[in-house]
Amino acid sequence: MKLDGLDTPSVLVDVDIMTANLDRLASYCRDHGLNLRPHVKTHKNPELAQLQIRKGAVGVTVAKLGEAEVMADGGIEDILLAYPVYGEIKWKRLAALARRTRISVALDSLEVAQGISRHAREGGVRIPILVEFDTGMRRCGFAIGKEAIPVVERIAELPALDYQGLLIYPGHFLKDPERRKQLLAVENRQLSTLLDLLNDAGIPYPVISASSTPTAYMSHQFKNITEVRAGTYIFNDRNTIGCQAADLKDCAVSVLATVVSTSVPGKAAIDGGSKTFSSDKFLSGDGVGFGHVIGDPGTVVEYLSEEHGHLVLANASRQYRVGDRVRVIPNHVCACVNMHDRIYGIRDDDVVTEWQVSARGAVQ
Amino acid sequence: MKLDGLDTPSVLVDVDIMTANLDRLASYCRDHGLNLRPHVKTHKNPELAQLQIRKGAVGVTVAKLGEAEVMADGGIEDILLAYPVYGEIKWKRLAALARRTRISVALDSLEVAQGISRHAREGGVRIPILVEFDTGMRRCGFAIGKEAIPVVERIAELPALDYQGLLIYPGHFLKDPERRKQLLAVENRQLSTLLDLLNDAGIPYPVISASSTPTAYMSHQFKNITEVRAGTYIFNDRNTIGCQAADLKDCAVSVLATVVSTSVPGKAAIDGGSKTFSSDKFLSGDGVGFGHVIGDPGTVVEYLSEEHGHLVLANASRQYRVGDRVRVIPNHVCACVNMHDRIYGIRDDDVVTEWQVSARGAVQ
Repeated sequence: MKLDGLDTPSVLVDVDIMTANLDRLASYCRDHGLNLRPHVKTHKNPELAQLQIRKGAVGVTVAKLGEAEVMADGGIEDILLAYPVYGEIKWKRLAALARRTRISVALDSLEVAQGISRHAREGGVRIPILVEFDTGMRRCGFAIGKEAIPVVERIAELPALDYQGLLIYPGHFLKDPERRKQLLAVENRQLSTLLDLLNDAGIPYPVISASSTPTAYMSHQFKNITEVRAGTYIFNDRNTIGCQAADLKDCAVSVLATVVSTSVPGKAAIDGGSKTFSSDKFLSGDGVGFGHVIGDPGTVVEYLSEEHGHLVLANASRQYRVGDRVRVIPNHVCACVNMHDRIYGIRDDDVVTEWQVSARGAVQ
Repeated sequence: MKLDGLDTPSVLVDVDIMTANLDRLASYCRDHGLNLRPHVKTHKNPELAQLQIRKGAVGVTVAKLGEAEVMADGGIEDILLAYPVYGEIKWKRLAALARRTRISVALDSLEVAQGISRHAREGGVRIPILVEFDTGMRRCGFAIGKEAIPVVERIAELPALDYQGLLIYPGHFLKDPERRKQLLAVENRQLSTLLDLLNDAGIPYPVISASSTPTAYMSHQFKNITEVRAGTYIFNDRNTIGCQAADLKDCAVSVLATVVSTSVPGKAAIDGGSKTFSSDKFLSGDGVGFGHVIGDPGTVVEYLSEEHGHLVLANASRQYRVGDRVRVIPNHVCACVNMHDRIYGIRDDDVVTEWQVSARGAVQ
């Protein structure tokens, strides 16, 4: 099918750009002796996960147990659930999942570890775990300090758990690469402090899982990390471009949309709003706008109502007529893809494939 | 099932509050001789649409053709597509839909009207249309002025279209009810100007479709409108509370979530983030936070990563431990529900029903 035959709004992925993105990070990780474990929250599709594995990834990362189940159903055999999964219902599902695939879990509390341990033992499985530490993001993870060491020891001793090492999230999403480097240095020092404490206590850390797309190509500067968990890099988006983690030419994703109204002077409305793009902001830039209009960067996607995207044309370099089609790079591709049941692979003007967003809605 | 048996995150709807919300607006519309045509973007479920109709609604409003198809499949017989639907693929689907249900369309361009006209004629159907005018929102709609009159005349004369009247969207979402009243007065004057122009041209307007949840109970102040298109009122949310269009006790919706991490001092993470709540802001309030924690309004849902909600506890009135459950009212319920495949009806601690978000993902 030609692109013209596709209805709008539709999420497009340029297959060649995507392939280059996958190859580039896979090659970087090989060169630096790092394992690549892509976060599949970006595409939520097992075939794309399989492609990442064929290109050398050791497995995948997910954020929710439901995503893990979809990946296991799709034949993925090594899954890291980078989430402190809590509750009887989920622990039962986790133990069931562990019977058919390798599922490891990152956690930062004794409560979560004990729950998983109990259900793993009852289910007759062992579950590998990573202990999460906070190197500066203040989201999750134990604070780095000697108080944490006895807790790690207790977790590592729990029955039916296989302690594997550490997980950190150096995901600072800053506009300025220099500032990002400085923060990375701070996080690195935090990590060194932690490793010293673990060394003193005789606790090993065969795995240190880290990184994110903005910091992916800085991963080798974390001397001790073993694993890179970037997700967005497969497609990139306006935010990864904004923080100079990718160039415009590396962005594989866009939303194909149609101009549906030009009645309001100086404006045009397209047929995708927050339920097509998500409301995620341009965090890595000036905060203005909800997308980059390909070929017309002066046009601002000023705001999104639920099903309309409102373009301000004051600095447009082209005319917009009802029925015109545009392609818009979303601010945050993970949130955008999550709005859709399927996305389309294109090569020039040809629609060459279609992927289901299989784990969309797997919030539990 | 008891609420305890439900996994998290889950969207809960208090059935009694919802019923009261439905009854209140239905009663108001009856009292003021207004037709109620609820916008179903909020719940996207045909059973709830049927319930609204049983309570007196004349039909429903949708924003996308895909939503209209789901509603028609669910037995809804009178649907307003309040969207300038454009393109050959959609016009074919629209004509097909018109063969099995009453589907009217609001539009604001000759291009859209001509496309619908052509496909309606080819499909052997007639399609009722409303012409959209802009009374101040600057989103869509013809500017009010004499230039628009010949266009309305041309649209009304197109074959296979049944011109029904006007659609406006006085949806100003302001914090301050006084300011909203003032704006409503401005919009009212705009509408009067339009009606004078139409009267002069001898163009009738049997239908004037208008309103939104924030302005729902002001609808009678628009003397000429015939139809109220509120959507959010069925559940309400933090934004409708913020703009005093509802009280906290009128809010039927909350997200049931579990505390999954308390490792970071002064904070707690819950198991729902932007892929559970949406990233929609607190537009009608101070802009701070992504939800109202029921029973603990001092706690701030500071920000949302994709699968974590980050609570700041500086002003919390309770302790948060890993495993605790909380209920959080989302900023924008329409965007929140759109993240989920199903939502749960509750009465006190009982889960009494479940609704599929059937039209979720119907972006086209």
